[in-house]
Amino acid sequence: MQNVVAGGSSTASTIVLNNPRRRNALSLPMLRCLRQDLLHDVKSRELRVIVIAAEGPVFCSGHDLKELSTEDDVKHHSQVFELCAEVMTLIQKLPVPVIAKVNGLATAAGCQLVASCDIAVASEKSKFATPGVNIGLFCSTPAVALGRSLPRKVALEMLFTGEPLSAHEALMHGLVSKVVPEDKLEEETMKISHKICESSKSVLALGKATFYRQITQDLDTAYKMTTQVMVDNLTLRDGQEGIEAFIQKRKPVWTHSQEEKK
Amino acid sequence: MQNVVAGGSSTASTIVLNNPRRRNALSLPMLRCLRQDLLHDVKSRELRVIVIAAEGPVFCSGHDLKELSTEDDVKHHSQVFELCAEVMTLIQKLPVPVIAKVNGLATAAGCQLVASCDIAVASEKSKFATPGVNIGLFCSTPAVALGRSLPRKVALEMLFTGEPLSAHEALMHGLVSKVVPEDKLEEETMKISHKICESSKSVLALGKATFYRQITQDLDTAYKMTTQVMVDNLTLRDGQEGIEAFIQKRKPVWTHSQEEKK
Amino acid sequence: MQNVVAGGSSTASTIVLNNPRRRNALSLPMLRCLRQDLLHDVKSRELRVIVIAAEGPVFCSGHDLKELSTEDDVKHHSQVFELCAEVMTLIQKLPVPVIAKVNGLATAAGCQLVASCDIAVASEKSKFATPGVNIGLFCSTPAVALGRSLPRKVALEMLFTGEPLSAHEALMHGLVSKVVPEDKLEEETMKISHKICESSKSVLALGKATFYRQITQDLDTAYKMTTQVMVDNLTLRDGQEGIEAFIQKRKPVWTHSQEEKK
Repeated sequence: MQNVVAGGSSTASTIVLNNPRRRNALSLPMLRCLRQDLLHDVKSRELRVIVIAAEGPVFCSGHDLKELSTEDDVKHHSQVFELCAEVMTLIQKLPVPVIAKVNGLATAAGCQLVASCDIAVASEKSKFATPGVNIGLFCSTPAVALGRSLPRKVALEMLFTGEPLSAHEALMHGLVSKVVPEDKLEEETMKISHKICESSKSVLALGKATFYRQITQDLDTAYKMTTQVMVDNLTLRDGQEGIEAFIQKRKPVWTHSQEEKK
Repeated sequence: MQNVVAGGSSTASTIVLNNPRRRNALSLPMLRCLRQDLLHDVKSRELRVIVIAAEGPVFCSGHDLKELSTEDDVKHHSQVFELCAEVMTLIQKLPVPVIAKVNGLATAAGCQLVASCDIAVASEKSKFATPGVNIGLFCSTPAVALGRSLPRKVALEMLFTGEPLSAHEALMHGLVSKVVPEDKLEEETMKISHKICESSKSVLALGKATFYRQITQDLDTAYKMTTQVMVDNLTLRDGQEGIEAFIQKRKPVWTHSQEEKK
Repeated sequence: MQNVVAGGSSTASTIVLNNPRRRNALSLPMLRCLRQDLLHDVKSRELRVIVIAAEGPVFCSGHDLKELSTEDDVKHHSQVFELCAEVMTLIQKLPVPVIAKVNGLATAAGCQLVASCDIAVASEKSKFATPGVNIGLFCSTPAVALGRSLPRKVALEMLFTGEPLSAHEALMHGLVSKVVPEDKLEEETMKISHKICESSKSVLALGKATFYRQITQDLDTAYKMTTQVMVDNLTLRDGQEGIEAFIQKRKPVWTHSQEEKK
């Protein structure tokens, strides 16, 4: 994998799955590398957003089936699935938005990776499938991410048949948030990415954590919690700066250090 | 705000956000007025449905940022967000359906207001955004309503970038339930509204409360609860009248008073 | 009702609602017959998928209102709704996928039946409605299935107005997973059905049960549970066979008996 860091004081980091000959399979080394890159990037004070992209016509083909053969034992299999689930949930726990930039086929745990990102932009030729059922290994962990991104019937048809969704179907059903022609994919991803780079790091971190926290709460609990978050947000240096800048009709100047309460 | 009450014994009430010069911002006085209008209207025995509309090109721009400035204290800020959450949840707790009739831009808490209504009809030119991130105040309370109306990736792209959804995108993703040309907005809203006015008040009230109650329950609990509701519904005077009228092939005559069990 | 069993060692069973003169109403006898057929079919070792289809222009019109008249008592009404909820939840509990094949109108509990299947394929002329409100009986039990298949605003507009969704609207909003021209409905349903028939019975059963189990869990619990399911899946005879066949580049040969751990 490689990290391409965009210029400027607020930066986007791109993690590229770069083993196209193995269809960017999420082998144990690939998963470890992905986890390391995600954790490394967030240490940067300037980082605002991470893009996960891929080399070659396959975005990601899921697990490396050679690691799941009967020659390996249950302990080894457990290790693969546990690390995979760890990486998928890590994406939601990171304090910056993570964008999947998909240009090609995303299958099984590769489809799960797309579904696990906060935002997903896909080229029109992209396809999404969970074909584990074809090899006797139902995509039960990908189903966790799919079941939280897609209507049930759509997710179940994918899981039971292994047949792919087109990019436009994926957009209609919510698996991705934007679909563009292939030659616009870079531009569109950068546009979203640059927009996010204009925001305060501490505010993005607070917002992302709050979104995932409230989503499973009942309505009253969610409003009680987020009402307090709004009040706290205003006490952040960047919260105060943002409102003041708006009232004074000027551009806000965000802090770059770890946000502290005044 | 003004209340336009449609004629007939079953009535629709329209609450109009009428401060277009301030982009219908949800200031404290505006929120208090909205709460009061909602609570006042439901006292009417004849009321079947409430429409929330707006004057001017902006449906609602969200909070009045002057009320969130650093000159005001935390206590004042809390008051704003608490009242806002109270009004949003009140909409779901009312015994009649509430329709958002959107003809223009709905942003931040204004977008939350649309998402909090039971039904939302929008003209084609309408747009929906949560741009709080631009001013350092993440739309964490709007996220509660958006996260329950839209696929996660779409909601998060809106929240992280502040960029708007078009009316057609809002329809595709479920934020609104109908999109029509601007010159058909009145007609379409009235059509839905008149259809609801043909129904029994007690049955609408029972159905609405039951819908929101079951939605967060597990499947078995939800079916146990709603099965009992169906049986209870049949013991209502209007439940009995509806079935009898259907079997006798005549129009039902609903009670207008608060429904009582026979 | 009749059962049409497709040939081959792996079979699809089709249950046909065959009382078109009564618009395939879910009367007590019809519900009992449907439950019996569902339970009977799953006993077959060869069964891989069940299709629910219907004779005539109405797929299913919901309850038989004559059974809900005031002449019958509360106990009788309870029996109808309890059996209906039992059949709807049974569909999810069955160890094989259930496909609704819809060619016409599905209303009230008939719409609930579509929403309760795992997969739904509809012809373009199909329509979906919950018009209980018109007869003073709010579709509160159908709302359980609709609320878990459709965006809230769309579900509530259906429930409050009784107005139908077109097939394309149903697809856009996730109530069905595929829409095709009427003359392609048989072909498309068979295609999905045959694809499922190529899979291992034990793997389908494990996957379906896991999907519905994880969908209401929080993310960490869901991943912990499904991670273990993936490991268990690999210890199934068909899980081992699938991986081995894939690595050896040959077609897998599934067990037909009830799957046992080695």
